[in-house]
Amino acid sequence: MTEPTLLPESGFRRLRIELAYDGTNYFGWGKQPDRRTIQEEIESALSTISRVKIDSVVAGRTDAGVHAVGQVIHVDVPEGLKIEDLLFKLNTLLDEDIRIHKVDIAEPGFHARFSALRRHYIYKIVDGNQVVAPLMRFDIAPWYRTLDIDQMNEASQLLIGEHDFFAFCKFRASSTTIRNLERFDWIRDGEGVLIANVVADAFCYSMVRNLVGAVACVGEGRFSPSWITSVLTNAERISDGMVFPARGLTLKKVEYPAADQLMARLESTLRRRGDEE
Amino acid sequence: MTEPTLLPESGFRRLRIELAYDGTNYFGWGKQPDRRTIQEEIESALSTISRVKIDSVVAGRTDAGVHAVGQVIHVDVPEGLKIEDLLFKLNTLLDEDIRIHKVDIAEPGFHARFSALRRHYIYKIVDGNQVVAPLMRFDIAPWYRTLDIDQMNEASQLLIGEHDFFAFCKFRASSTTIRNLERFDWIRDGEGVLIANVVADAFCYSMVRNLVGAVACVGEGRFSPSWITSVLTNAERISDGMVFPARGLTLKKVEYPAADQLMARLESTLRRRGDEE
Repeated sequence: MTEPTLLPESGFRRLRIELAYDGTNYFGWGKQPDRRTIQEEIESALSTISRVKIDSVVAGRTDAGVHAVGQVIHVDVPEGLKIEDLLFKLNTLLDEDIRIHKVDIAEPGFHARFSALRRHYIYKIVDGNQVVAPLMRFDIAPWYRTLDIDQMNEASQLLIGEHDFFAFCKFRASSTTIRNLERFDWIRDGEGVLIANVVADAFCYSMVRNLVGAVACVGEGRFSPSWITSVLTNAERISDGMVFPARGLTLKKVEYPAADQLMARLESTLRRRGDEE
Repeated sequence: MTEPTLLPESGFRRLRIELAYDGTNYFGWGKQPDRRTIQEEIESALSTISRVKIDSVVAGRTDAGVHAVGQVIHVDVPEGLKIEDLLFKLNTLLDEDIRIHKVDIAEPGFHARFSALRRHYIYKIVDGNQVVAPLMRFDIAPWYRTLDIDQMNEASQLLIGEHDFFAFCKFRASSTTIRNLERFDWIRDGEGVLIANVVADAFCYSMVRNLVGAVACVGEGRFSPSWITSVLTNAERISDGMVFPARGLTLKKVEYPAADQLMARLESTLRRRGDEE
Protein backbone atom coordinates (compact mmCIF):
# COMPACT_ATOMS: atom_id res chain seq x y z
CA MET A 1 0.00 0.00 0.00
CA THR A 2 1.14 3.52 -0.61
CA GLU A 3 -1.76 5.76 0.44
CA PRO A 4 -4.52 4.93 2.92
CA THR A 5 -7.83 4.17 1.22
CA LEU A 6 -11.28 4.88 2.60
CA LEU A 7 -12.01 1.16 3.06
CA PRO A 8 -9.45 -1.67 3.18
CA GLU A 9 -8.29 -3.02 -0.19
CA SER A 10 -8.70 -6.66 -1.12
CA GLY A 11 -6.29 -8.92 0.80
CA PHE A 12 -6.05 -6.44 3.70
CA ARG A 13 -7.99 -6.03 6.88
CA ARG A 14 -8.37 -2.93 8.99
CA LEU A 15 -7.12 -2.69 12.58
CA ARG A 16 -8.30 -0.16 15.15
CA ILE A 17 -5.41 0.68 17.48
CA GLU A 18 -5.55 2.69 20.70
CA LEU A 19 -2.35 4.26 21.91
CA ALA A 20 -0.83 6.80 24.29
CA TYR A 21 2.29 8.91 24.11
CA ASP A 22 4.40 11.46 25.89
CA GLY A 23 4.89 13.93 23.04
CA THR A 24 7.82 15.75 24.70
CA ASN A 25 10.50 14.26 22.47
CA TYR A 26 8.57 14.18 19.16
CA PHE A 27 7.79 16.67 16.44
CA GLY A 28 4.12 15.78 16.71
CA TRP A 29 2.08 13.04 15.08
CA GLY A 30 2.52 13.73 11.37
CA LYS A 31 5.55 12.47 9.43
CA GLN A 32 8.18 15.04 8.46
CA PRO A 33 11.52 14.45 6.74
CA ASP A 34 14.44 14.03 9.16
CA ARG A 35 12.33 14.62 12.26
CA ARG A 36 11.24 12.15 14.89
CA THR A 37 7.46 11.85 14.78
CA ILE A 38 5.03 9.46 16.41
CA GLN A 39 3.51 8.43 13.07
CA GLU A 40 6.95 7.48 11.74
CA GLU A 41 7.71 5.38 14.85
CA ILE A 42 4.39 3.53 14.74
CA GLU A 43 4.38 2.89 10.99
CA SER A 44 7.97 1.78 11.06
CA ALA A 45 7.26 -0.72 13.89
CA LEU A 46 4.16 -2.01 12.05
CA SER A 47 6.10 -2.31 8.79
CA THR A 48 8.90 -4.23 10.52
CA ILE A 49 6.43 -6.73 11.97
CA SER A 50 4.20 -7.15 8.89
CA ARG A 51 7.03 -6.91 6.30
CA VAL A 52 4.95 -4.62 4.09
CA LYS A 53 4.87 -0.83 4.15
CA ILE A 54 2.05 0.27 6.48
CA ASP A 55 0.35 3.69 6.38
CA SER A 56 -1.81 4.89 9.23
CA VAL A 57 -4.79 7.22 9.60
CA VAL A 58 -5.08 9.09 12.90
CA ALA A 59 -8.08 10.52 14.74
CA GLY A 60 -6.30 13.58 16.18
CA ARG A 61 -3.19 14.93 14.43
CA THR A 62 -1.39 16.22 17.50
CA ASP A 63 1.18 18.99 17.13
CA ALA A 64 4.82 18.92 18.28
CA GLY A 65 5.01 18.38 22.04
CA VAL A 66 1.33 17.49 22.48
CA HIS A 67 0.53 14.25 24.33
CA ALA A 68 -2.17 11.58 24.04
CA VAL A 69 -3.67 9.14 26.51
CA GLY A 70 -6.42 7.87 24.18
CA GLN A 71 -5.31 8.38 20.58
CA VAL A 72 -6.95 6.16 17.93
CA ILE A 73 -5.55 5.14 14.54
CA HIS A 74 -6.45 2.63 11.87
CA VAL A 75 -4.10 0.68 9.64
CA ASP A 76 -4.81 -1.84 6.87
CA VAL A 77 -2.61 -4.92 7.25
CA PRO A 78 -2.26 -8.09 5.13
CA GLU A 79 -5.02 -10.57 6.00
CA GLY A 80 -2.45 -13.22 6.99
CA LEU A 81 -0.83 -11.09 9.72
CA LYS A 82 -1.20 -12.56 13.21
CA ILE A 83 -3.09 -10.11 15.39
CA GLU A 84 -2.85 -11.89 18.75
CA ASP A 85 0.69 -10.87 19.67
CA LEU A 86 0.80 -7.59 17.73
CA LEU A 87 0.31 -5.40 20.81
CA PHE A 88 3.17 -7.11 22.61
CA LYS A 89 5.46 -6.97 19.56
CA LEU A 90 4.72 -3.29 18.95
CA ASN A 91 5.44 -2.35 22.57
CA THR A 92 8.70 -4.27 22.39
CA LEU A 93 9.82 -2.32 19.32
CA LEU A 94 8.60 1.11 20.44
CA ASP A 95 10.26 3.32 23.04
CA GLU A 96 8.39 3.50 26.32
CA ASP A 97 7.15 7.05 25.63
CA ILE A 98 4.79 5.48 23.06
CA ARG A 99 2.57 2.62 24.26
CA ILE A 100 -0.04 0.61 22.41
CA HIS A 101 -3.03 -0.01 24.68
CA LYS A 102 -5.34 -2.01 22.37
CA VAL A 103 -5.35 -3.69 18.96
CA ASP A 104 -8.70 -4.82 17.49
CA ILE A 105 -10.02 -5.83 14.10
CA ALA A 106 -12.05 -2.77 13.08
CA GLU A 107 -15.80 -2.94 12.54
CA PRO A 108 -16.86 -2.58 8.88
CA GLY A 109 -16.84 1.07 7.79
CA PHE A 110 -14.54 2.21 10.59
CA HIS A 111 -12.24 5.08 9.70
CA ALA A 112 -10.16 6.55 12.57
CA ARG A 113 -10.53 10.10 11.29
CA PHE A 114 -13.84 10.27 9.41
CA SER A 115 -15.88 8.06 11.76
CA ALA A 116 -14.98 10.07 14.85
CA LEU A 117 -17.94 11.82 16.51
CA ARG A 118 -15.91 14.00 18.83
CA ARG A 119 -12.45 14.57 20.29
CA HIS A 120 -11.77 15.22 24.00
CA TYR A 121 -8.71 17.23 24.97
CA ILE A 122 -7.45 18.31 28.37
CA TYR A 123 -5.16 21.24 29.09
CA LYS A 124 -3.24 21.61 32.39
CA ILE A 125 -1.80 24.85 33.82
CA VAL A 126 0.09 25.61 37.02
CA ASP A 127 -0.45 29.34 37.47
CA GLY A 128 0.76 32.13 39.75
CA ASN A 129 4.42 31.18 39.25
CA GLN A 130 3.86 28.13 41.47
CA VAL A 131 6.43 25.36 41.38
CA VAL A 132 5.57 22.48 39.03
CA ALA A 133 6.20 19.08 40.69
CA PRO A 134 9.11 17.45 38.81
CA LEU A 135 7.39 14.08 38.27
CA MET A 136 4.29 15.83 36.88
CA ARG A 137 6.04 18.40 34.71
CA PHE A 138 5.63 16.74 31.31
CA ASP A 139 1.99 17.59 30.65
CA ILE A 140 1.64 20.83 32.60
CA ALA A 141 2.18 24.35 31.25
CA PRO A 142 3.58 26.78 33.86
CA TRP A 143 2.12 30.30 33.85
CA TYR A 144 3.52 33.18 35.90
CA ARG A 145 0.30 35.16 36.52
CA THR A 146 -2.53 33.99 38.76
CA LEU A 147 -5.65 32.97 36.84
CA ASP A 148 -9.24 33.51 38.01
CA ILE A 149 -11.06 30.25 37.30
CA ASP A 150 -14.56 31.76 37.59
CA GLN A 151 -13.80 34.38 34.96
CA MET A 152 -12.29 31.68 32.76
CA ASN A 153 -15.35 29.47 33.06
CA GLU A 154 -17.62 32.41 32.23
CA ALA A 155 -15.60 33.17 29.10
CA SER A 156 -15.33 29.51 28.06
CA GLN A 157 -19.11 29.05 28.23
CA LEU A 158 -19.60 31.87 25.70
CA LEU A 159 -17.78 29.78 23.08
CA ILE A 160 -19.99 26.69 23.39
CA GLY A 161 -21.97 25.74 20.29
CA GLU A 162 -21.45 25.69 16.54
CA HIS A 163 -19.45 28.73 15.41
CA ASP A 164 -16.90 29.74 12.85
CA PHE A 165 -13.74 29.43 14.98
CA PHE A 166 -11.62 31.15 12.32
CA ALA A 167 -10.21 33.58 14.94
CA PHE A 168 -8.78 30.62 16.89
CA CYS A 169 -7.48 28.61 13.91
CA LYS A 170 -4.37 28.87 11.83
CA PHE A 171 -5.77 29.62 8.40
CA ARG A 172 -5.82 26.97 5.72
CA ALA A 173 -7.40 28.00 2.43
CA SER A 174 -9.03 24.65 1.66
CA SER A 175 -10.79 23.96 4.91
CA THR A 176 -13.76 25.18 6.87
CA THR A 177 -13.25 26.54 10.38
CA ILE A 178 -16.83 25.91 11.49
CA ARG A 179 -16.78 23.60 14.50
CA ASN A 180 -19.20 22.51 17.19
CA LEU A 181 -17.63 23.15 20.61
CA GLU A 182 -19.54 20.86 22.97
CA ARG A 183 -17.64 21.36 26.21
CA PHE A 184 -15.11 23.87 27.53
CA ASP A 185 -14.76 24.23 31.30
CA TRP A 186 -12.14 24.50 34.00
CA ILE A 187 -11.54 22.89 37.38
CA ARG A 188 -8.74 23.27 39.93
CA ASP A 189 -7.62 19.88 41.25
CA GLY A 190 -6.45 18.97 44.77
CA GLU A 191 -2.89 20.05 43.97
CA GLY A 192 -4.00 23.43 42.56
CA VAL A 193 -3.53 22.46 38.91
CA LEU A 194 -5.99 24.15 36.51
CA ILE A 195 -7.49 21.57 34.14
CA ALA A 196 -9.60 22.41 31.08
CA ASN A 197 -11.86 19.85 29.43
CA VAL A 198 -12.37 20.75 25.78
CA VAL A 199 -14.65 18.66 23.55
CA ALA A 200 -15.70 19.28 19.93
CA ASP A 201 -16.62 17.32 16.83
CA ALA A 202 -13.20 18.27 15.50
CA PHE A 203 -10.57 20.95 16.04
CA CYS A 204 -8.62 23.11 13.58
CA TYR A 205 -4.86 23.29 13.82
CA SER A 206 -3.74 24.83 17.17
CA MET A 207 -7.38 25.63 18.06
CA VAL A 208 -7.32 24.27 21.64
CA ARG A 209 -4.14 26.16 22.49
CA ASN A 210 -5.62 29.36 21.02
CA LEU A 211 -8.83 28.90 23.00
CA VAL A 212 -6.83 28.34 26.19
CA GLY A 213 -4.65 31.38 25.49
CA ALA A 214 -7.61 33.68 24.91
CA VAL A 215 -9.47 32.46 28.00
CA ALA A 216 -6.27 32.85 30.07
CA CYS A 217 -6.21 36.55 29.07
CA VAL A 218 -9.62 36.81 30.73
CA GLY A 219 -8.34 34.79 33.71
CA GLU A 220 -5.50 37.28 34.15
CA GLY A 221 -8.02 40.14 34.27
CA ARG A 222 -6.80 41.78 31.06
CA PHE A 223 -10.27 41.47 29.48
CA SER A 224 -13.77 40.78 30.71
CA PRO A 225 -15.37 37.44 29.76
CA SER A 226 -17.55 39.08 27.09
CA TRP A 227 -14.40 40.06 25.16
CA ILE A 228 -14.27 36.43 24.00
CA THR A 229 -17.53 36.90 22.10
CA SER A 230 -16.12 39.90 20.26
CA VAL A 231 -13.05 37.87 19.28
CA LEU A 232 -15.30 35.11 17.96
CA THR A 233 -17.61 37.41 15.99
CA ASN A 234 -14.97 39.83 14.64
CA ALA A 235 -13.36 36.84 12.97
CA GLU A 236 -9.85 38.25 13.04
CA ARG A 237 -7.18 35.77 14.07
CA ILE A 238 -5.94 36.39 17.61
CA SER A 239 -2.27 37.07 18.15
CA ASP A 240 0.22 34.20 18.03
CA GLY A 241 1.45 35.46 21.39
CA MET A 242 -1.72 34.15 22.97
CA VAL A 243 -1.13 30.53 21.94
CA PHE A 244 -0.46 28.43 25.04
CA PRO A 245 2.42 25.91 24.95
CA ALA A 246 2.01 22.41 23.51
CA ARG A 247 3.25 20.66 26.64
CA GLY A 248 0.02 21.34 28.57
CA LEU A 249 -2.19 19.70 25.93
CA THR A 250 -3.26 16.04 25.90
CA LEU A 251 -5.68 14.22 23.60
CA LYS A 252 -7.80 12.33 26.12
CA LYS A 253 -10.15 10.26 23.98
CA VAL A 254 -11.97 9.97 20.68
CA GLU A 255 -15.64 8.97 20.45
CA TYR A 256 -17.09 6.81 17.68
CA PRO A 257 -20.65 5.73 16.85
CA ALA A 258 -21.93 2.19 17.41
CA ALA A 259 -20.78 -0.40 14.87
CA ASP A 260 -24.04 -0.42 12.89
CA GLN A 261 -23.83 3.32 12.25
CA LEU A 262 -20.23 3.45 11.02
CA MET A 263 -21.02 3.26 7.30
CA ALA A 264 -23.66 6.00 7.47
CA ARG A 265 -21.33 8.18 9.57
CA LEU A 266 -18.49 7.78 7.09
CA GLU A 267 -20.70 8.94 4.22
CA SER A 268 -22.14 11.94 6.07
CA THR A 269 -18.73 13.07 7.32
CA LEU A 270 -17.30 13.01 3.81
CA ARG A 271 -20.16 15.16 2.58
CA ARG A 272 -19.77 17.68 5.41
CA ARG A 273 -16.16 18.22 6.18
CA GLY A 274 -12.75 19.28 4.98
CA ASP A 275 -9.57 19.34 7.00
CA GLU A 276 -9.45 19.04 10.74
CA GLU A 277 -7.02 18.43 13.53
CA MET B 1 33.00 26.00 55.15
CA THR B 2 34.37 22.68 54.04
CA GLU B 3 32.46 20.05 56.04
CA PRO B 4 28.98 20.42 57.52
CA THR B 5 29.02 20.90 61.27
CA LEU B 6 26.41 19.72 63.76
CA LEU B 7 25.28 23.27 64.49
CA PRO B 8 25.91 26.37 62.37
CA GLU B 9 29.27 28.08 62.84
CA SER B 10 29.54 31.71 63.90
CA GLY B 11 28.55 34.07 61.08
CA PHE B 12 26.31 31.47 59.44
CA ARG B 13 22.68 30.60 59.79
CA ARG B 14 20.97 27.32 58.99
CA LEU B 15 18.28 26.98 56.32
CA ARG B 16 15.77 24.15 56.09
CA ILE B 17 14.97 23.48 52.43
CA GLU B 18 12.23 21.23 51.03
CA LEU B 19 12.66 19.96 47.51
CA ALA B 20 11.44 17.44 44.95
CA TYR B 21 13.15 15.72 42.05
CA ASP B 22 12.72 13.33 39.20
CA GLY B 23 15.77 11.12 39.80
CA THR B 24 15.71 9.55 36.31
CA ASN B 25 18.67 11.48 34.95
CA TYR B 26 20.82 11.59 38.11
CA PHE B 27 23.25 9.23 39.80
CA GLY B 28 21.37 9.67 43.05
CA TRP B 29 21.67 12.26 45.79
CA GLY B 30 25.29 11.89 46.93
CA LYS B 31 28.16 13.64 45.13
CA GLN B 32 30.43 11.46 42.98
CA PRO B 33 33.31 12.58 40.77
CA ASP B 34 32.30 13.14 37.12
CA ARG B 35 28.70 12.09 37.63
CA ARG B 36 25.58 14.22 37.67
CA THR B 37 24.06 14.10 41.16
CA ILE B 38 21.30 16.06 42.82
CA GLN B 39 23.56 17.14 45.69
CA GLU B 40 26.08 18.58 43.24
CA GLU B 41 23.37 20.53 41.37
CA ILE B 42 21.87 21.99 44.56
CA GLU B 43 25.16 22.88 46.22
CA SER B 44 26.48 24.40 43.02
CA ALA B 45 23.35 26.58 42.66
CA LEU B 46 23.55 27.64 46.33
CA SER B 47 27.26 28.40 46.01
CA THR B 48 26.66 30.51 42.87
CA ILE B 49 24.03 32.59 44.67
CA SER B 50 25.84 32.98 48.01
CA ARG B 51 29.37 33.24 46.54
CA VAL B 52 30.77 30.89 49.19
CA LYS B 53 31.11 27.11 48.99
CA ILE B 54 27.95 25.54 50.45
CA ASP B 55 27.71 21.97 51.75
CA SER B 56 24.38 20.33 52.40
CA VAL B 57 23.08 17.64 54.76
CA VAL B 58 20.20 15.52 53.47
CA ALA B 59 17.43 13.61 55.28
CA GLY B 60 17.25 10.67 52.85
CA ARG B 61 20.27 9.83 50.69
CA THR B 62 18.40 8.54 47.66
CA ASP B 63 20.15 6.13 45.29
CA ALA B 64 20.61 6.52 41.51
CA GLY B 65 17.24 6.79 39.77
CA VAL B 66 15.20 7.22 42.98
CA HIS B 67 12.82 10.21 43.16
CA ALA B 68 11.65 12.57 45.90
CA VAL B 69 8.53 14.63 46.37
CA GLY B 70 9.33 15.74 49.94
CA GLN B 71 13.09 15.63 50.45
CA VAL B 72 14.55 17.84 53.23
CA ILE B 73 18.07 19.26 53.49
CA HIS B 74 19.82 21.82 55.61
CA VAL B 75 22.58 24.19 54.60
CA ASP B 76 24.50 26.80 56.60
CA VAL B 77 24.72 30.08 54.70
CA PRO B 78 26.42 33.42 55.52
CA GLU B 79 24.20 35.50 57.81
CA GLY B 80 24.09 38.33 55.28
CA LEU B 81 22.54 36.21 52.50
CA LYS B 82 19.07 37.40 51.42
CA ILE B 83 16.58 34.58 52.03
CA GLU B 84 13.46 36.15 50.51
CA ASP B 85 14.21 35.48 46.85
CA LEU B 86 16.39 32.38 47.36
CA LEU B 87 13.66 29.92 46.30
CA PHE B 88 13.04 31.82 43.08
CA LYS B 89 16.76 32.16 42.32
CA LEU B 90 17.43 28.48 42.96
CA ASN B 91 14.56 27.36 40.71
CA THR B 92 15.86 29.67 37.97
CA LEU B 93 19.33 28.09 38.13
CA LEU B 94 18.20 24.46 38.50
CA ASP B 95 16.81 22.25 35.73
CA GLU B 96 13.08 21.62 36.00
CA ASP B 97 13.61 18.02 37.15
CA ILE B 98 14.75 19.48 40.49
CA ARG B 99 12.41 21.97 42.19
CA ILE B 100 12.76 23.80 45.49
CA HIS B 101 9.39 23.92 47.27
CA LYS B 102 10.28 25.78 50.47
CA VAL B 103 13.15 27.70 52.07
CA ASP B 104 12.96 28.53 55.79
CA ILE B 105 15.34 29.63 58.50
CA ALA B 106 15.78 26.44 60.55
CA GLU B 107 14.67 26.21 64.16
CA PRO B 108 17.56 26.00 66.67
CA GLY B 109 18.97 22.47 66.85
CA PHE B 110 17.54 21.42 63.49
CA HIS B 111 19.64 18.89 61.57
CA ALA B 112 18.09 17.49 58.36
CA ARG B 113 19.49 14.00 58.97
CA PHE B 114 19.83 13.58 62.73
CA SER B 115 16.61 15.36 63.76
CA ALA B 116 14.42 13.24 61.46
CA LEU B 117 11.90 11.06 63.31
CA ARG B 118 10.89 8.95 60.32
CA ARG B 119 11.09 8.67 56.54
CA HIS B 120 8.10 7.85 54.31
CA TYR B 121 8.73 6.13 50.99
CA ILE B 122 6.30 4.95 48.32
CA TYR B 123 6.96 2.28 45.73
CA LYS B 124 4.82 1.89 42.57
CA ILE B 125 4.50 -1.25 40.42
CA VAL B 126 2.48 -2.01 37.30
CA ASP B 127 2.28 -5.82 37.30
CA GLY B 128 1.04 -8.60 35.02
CA ASN B 129 2.92 -7.19 32.02
CA GLN B 130 0.35 -4.40 31.80
CA VAL B 131 1.20 -1.36 29.73
CA VAL B 132 2.61 1.58 31.72
CA ALA B 133 0.99 4.88 30.71
CA PRO B 134 3.72 6.98 29.00
CA LEU B 135 3.10 10.15 31.04
CA MET B 136 3.26 8.16 34.30
CA ARG B 137 6.23 5.97 33.45
CA PHE B 138 8.94 7.82 35.40
CA ASP B 139 8.12 6.62 38.90
CA ILE B 140 6.58 3.21 38.13
CA ALA B 141 8.42 -0.12 37.96
CA PRO B 142 6.92 -2.54 35.42
CA TRP B 143 6.72 -6.20 36.44
CA TYR B 144 5.79 -9.05 34.11
CA ARG B 145 4.11 -11.42 36.60
CA THR B 146 0.77 -10.75 38.28
CA LEU B 147 1.10 -9.95 41.98
CA ASP B 148 -1.40 -10.99 44.68
CA ILE B 149 -1.90 -7.90 46.85
CA ASP B 150 -3.46 -9.84 49.77
CA GLN B 151 -0.47 -12.17 50.02
CA MET B 152 1.83 -9.16 49.81
CA ASN B 153 0.03 -7.33 52.59
CA GLU B 154 0.17 -10.45 54.77
CA ALA B 155 3.93 -10.75 54.24
CA SER B 156 4.56 -7.01 54.71
CA GLN B 157 2.78 -7.01 58.07
CA LEU B 158 5.18 -9.67 59.38
CA LEU B 159 8.04 -7.20 59.03
CA ILE B 160 6.50 -4.42 61.10
CA GLY B 161 8.38 -3.49 64.29
CA GLU B 162 11.95 -3.13 65.44
CA HIS B 163 14.14 -5.83 63.88
CA ASP B 164 17.64 -6.36 62.59
CA PHE B 165 17.01 -5.84 58.87
CA PHE B 166 20.49 -7.11 57.96
CA ALA B 167 18.98 -9.54 55.39
CA PHE B 168 17.50 -6.58 53.48
CA CYS B 169 20.51 -4.23 53.74
CA LYS B 170 23.70 -3.99 51.77
CA PHE B 171 26.30 -4.63 54.44
CA ARG B 172 28.41 -1.79 55.78
CA ALA B 173 30.86 -2.72 58.53
CA SER B 174 30.44 0.44 60.60
CA SER B 175 26.69 0.66 60.86
CA THR B 176 23.84 -1.04 62.64
CA THR B 177 21.03 -2.58 60.59
CA ILE B 178 18.46 -2.44 63.40
CA ARG B 179 15.52 -0.37 62.24
CA ASN B 180 11.95 0.25 63.37
CA LEU B 181 9.59 -0.44 60.45
CA GLU B 182 6.41 1.45 61.32
CA ARG B 183 4.34 0.93 58.19
CA PHE B 184 4.50 -1.37 55.15
CA ASP B 185 1.28 -1.96 53.20
CA TRP B 186 -0.03 -2.12 49.66
CA ILE B 187 -3.02 -0.70 47.80
CA ARG B 188 -4.09 -0.95 44.16
CA ASP B 189 -5.20 2.45 42.85
CA GLY B 190 -7.98 3.25 40.35
CA GLU B 191 -5.66 2.64 37.40
CA GLY B 192 -4.47 -0.74 38.75
CA VAL B 193 -1.09 0.55 39.96
CA LEU B 194 0.24 -1.24 43.09
CA ILE B 195 1.45 1.32 45.64
CA ALA B 196 3.43 0.46 48.77
CA ASN B 197 3.69 2.85 51.70
CA VAL B 198 6.87 2.17 53.67
CA VAL B 199 7.69 4.12 56.83
CA ALA B 200 10.60 3.64 59.27
CA ASP B 201 12.77 5.72 61.57
CA ALA B 202 15.51 5.25 58.98
CA PHE B 203 16.44 2.87 56.18
CA CYS B 204 19.70 1.13 55.30
CA TYR B 205 21.09 1.35 51.79
CA SER B 206 18.69 -0.28 49.25
CA MET B 207 16.47 -1.54 52.10
CA VAL B 208 13.11 -0.44 50.62
CA ARG B 209 13.88 -2.01 47.25
CA ASN B 210 14.95 -5.26 48.97
CA LEU B 211 11.78 -5.32 51.07
CA VAL B 212 9.66 -4.75 47.95
CA GLY B 213 11.55 -7.46 46.04
CA ALA B 214 11.11 -10.04 48.80
CA VAL B 215 7.41 -9.26 49.25
CA ALA B 216 6.92 -9.43 45.45
CA CYS B 217 8.26 -13.02 45.54
CA VAL B 218 5.38 -13.79 47.89
CA GLY B 219 2.99 -11.86 45.62
CA GLU B 220 4.05 -14.03 42.68
CA GLY B 221 3.21 -17.16 44.69
CA ARG B 222 6.80 -18.42 44.84
CA PHE B 223 6.75 -18.39 48.66
CA SER B 224 4.10 -18.20 51.35
CA PRO B 225 3.91 -15.01 53.44
CA SER B 226 5.60 -16.69 56.42
CA TRP B 227 8.75 -17.16 54.32
CA ILE B 228 9.42 -13.46 54.97
CA THR B 229 9.85 -14.18 58.69
CA SER B 230 12.43 -16.86 57.97
CA VAL B 231 14.37 -14.41 55.77
CA LEU B 232 14.32 -11.85 58.57
CA THR B 233 15.38 -14.26 61.31
CA ASN B 234 17.96 -16.25 59.31
CA ALA B 235 19.79 -12.98 58.78
CA GLU B 236 21.39 -13.98 55.50
CA ARG B 237 21.30 -11.29 52.84
CA ILE B 238 18.69 -12.01 50.19
CA SER B 239 19.82 -12.32 46.59
CA ASP B 240 20.65 -9.17 44.63
CA GLY B 241 18.28 -10.51 41.98
CA MET B 242 15.38 -9.69 44.28
CA VAL B 243 16.14 -5.96 44.46
CA PHE B 244 13.39 -4.03 42.68
CA PRO B 245 14.39 -1.19 40.31
CA ALA B 246 15.12 2.34 41.56
CA ARG B 247 12.61 4.01 39.24
CA GLY B 248 9.60 2.82 41.27
CA LEU B 249 10.88 4.38 44.52
CA THR B 250 10.03 7.88 45.76
CA LEU B 251 10.89 9.58 49.07
CA LYS B 252 7.53 11.02 50.03
CA LYS B 253 8.23 12.95 53.22
CA VAL B 254 10.41 13.27 56.29
CA GLU B 255 8.96 13.87 59.74
CA TYR B 256 10.61 16.04 62.40
CA PRO B 257 9.77 16.74 66.05
CA ALA B 258 8.31 20.05 67.23
CA ALA B 259 10.77 22.95 67.46
CA ASP B 260 11.19 22.74 71.27
CA GLN B 261 12.29 19.10 71.07
CA LEU B 262 14.92 19.48 68.34
CA MET B 263 17.92 19.85 70.65
CA ALA B 264 16.98 16.81 72.73
CA ARG B 265 16.31 14.77 69.57
CA LEU B 266 19.69 15.68 68.10
CA GLU B 267 21.49 14.47 71.21
CA SER B 268 19.55 11.20 71.49
CA THR B 269 19.98 10.38 67.80
CA LEU B 270 23.74 10.86 68.01
CA ARG B 271 23.90 8.45 70.93
CA ARG B 272 21.80 5.80 69.16
CA ARG B 273 22.63 5.64 65.50
CA GLY B 274 25.24 5.09 62.84
CA ASP B 275 24.73 5.25 59.11
CA GLU B 276 21.34 5.34 57.44
CA GLU B 277 19.76 5.95 54.09
